Amino acid sequence: MDRPIGLFDSGFGGLTVMKEVARLLPNENLIYFGDTANLPYGNKSPETVVKLALESASFLEKKQIKLLIVACHTACSHALKAIETKLRIPVIGVIEPGLQLVKPFQKIALLGTSSTIESGVYQSLILKQNPGVELYPVACPLFVPLIEEGFHNEKAAELVAAKYLQHLSGKIEGALLACTHYALMRPILQKVLGEKVVLVEPAEECALHVQKRLHANNQAILEQKKPVYTFFSSDDPKKFQKFGEIFLEKKIENVERK
Amino acid sequence: MDRPIGLFDSGFGGLTVMKEVARLLPNENLIYFGDTANLPYGNKSPETVVKLALESASFLEKKQIKLLIVACHTACSHALKAIETKLRIPVIGVIEPGLQLVKPFQKIALLGTSSTIESGVYQSLILKQNPGVELYPVACPLFVPLIEEGFHNEKAAELVAAKYLQHLSGKIEGALLACTHYALMRPILQKVLGEKVVLVEPAEECALHVQKRLHANNQAILEQKKPVYTFFSSDDPKKFQKFGEIFLEKKIENVERK
Repeated sequence: MDRPIGLFDSGFGGLTVMKEVARLLPNENLIYFGDTANLPYGNKSPETVVKLALESASFLEKKQIKLLIVACHTACSHALKAIETKLRIPVIGVIEPGLQLVKPFQKIALLGTSSTIESGVYQSLILKQNPGVELYPVACPLFVPLIEEGFHNEKAAELVAAKYLQHLSGKIEGALLACTHYALMRPILQKVLGEKVVLVEPAEECALHVQKRLHANNQAILEQKKPVYTFFSSDDPKKFQKFGEIFLEKKIENVERK
Repeated sequence: MDRPIGLFDSGFGGLTVMKEVARLLPNENLIYFGDTANLPYGNKSPETVVKLALESASFLEKKQIKLLIVACHTACSHALKAIETKLRIPVIGVIEPGLQLVKPFQKIALLGTSSTIESGVYQSLILKQNPGVELYPVACPLFVPLIEEGFHNEKAAELVAAKYLQHLSGKIEGALLACTHYALMRPILQKVLGEKVVLVEPAEECALHVQKRLHANNQAILEQKKPVYTFFSSDDPKKFQKFGEIFLEKKIENVERK
């Protein structure tokens, strides 16, 4: 079998990245690991996130992957460098793609988990790229549980979003969804932030980075073939299967326990 | 120093039990451990909960405690027996006290985390105690994150509660809050379930069980003295301190990292 691409996240959010990678690179075998026993990463301390992210990355490296996608903004904020140092394969995160996408904006909101926002990593990279930018970072810690419990289209989610975001009204041109879960809250975020605000998600751009890297390394699978998708979770595989399908928008056939 | 009583929970909820123990047994030294690096327990599988609960219990046993309170319904549902088998000190949970309190009711709702409800432990014990009872178990997985993010008095929490509980309207006399966090949602739960429904919390009854056991074992501290309270968390101690004070309704002076 051709060596697969690996992806991990604390739970299900990274599946929104997997969906884009599968769309753009339909011949590639993919292995996804959801570290659901340690979910969520987003409210944990930097040291804990680094430890968990390194364990997740090592687990996938042992599966003979040819490239690792860190499909979690919290893990990227704290642990991307540590992972790059430890692994002997190319590593691609979601922050760099996000940076590309916010280039056109002068006034932008950065929405993420508490841990991602508190890290300040995104903020300093955006300001380095564009020192004149007006940046509004907002931690939205309840979005992940609301999404994982299927409340992302409910009035309750809209009220929570309004509480977090109403102070941004009239101030921003774009909002970067710096958490792979938030894609599912698009309709409510658009409503709360206003129709004129451009919502930016790094998933597709991340898939483009992966495509470019594989071609540069002569590692892309060019012939048409049916790919193999493998799923692992560190907690209950049945629950992963059930919730995962909502994020991946595809049937998940089989999940193994790490 | 007199040997302390130990308490643990996945996070902050168990502090509502500690508050009652401190009130009823004001001379006792207490050690609280919040396993915040692994929070929440309530959406994890039974095996994961057992593993984490045993680690938490062993950590406290090494602190020379004279009695352990498992101040978490999810941990009690899955791991109380395993903890009792492993430890050589008395262990008291929150389920037995809850059972005492629901005796007067014929129609009762059981509100808990997904993991507590799915375990079926509470249900079978309540039905054994009163085979004629009409029992309505409801998993309320979003209550813990809403409470831990300070949304327990917000309209969003009321909408979530209504979504979980509106089907109980007119059907119940009492509701057992089978999660130590839920005490903070009392006003909203009372509103959603109706003023006539009696809300039952095991925290105080649990403290009474502890008092009785210490007296029976001649281990109670009888002379008046200022007690020592010690706090440990497995994740960021500063965050524990900040959030913990809301649950304990007391200043938390110092938190050490496990």
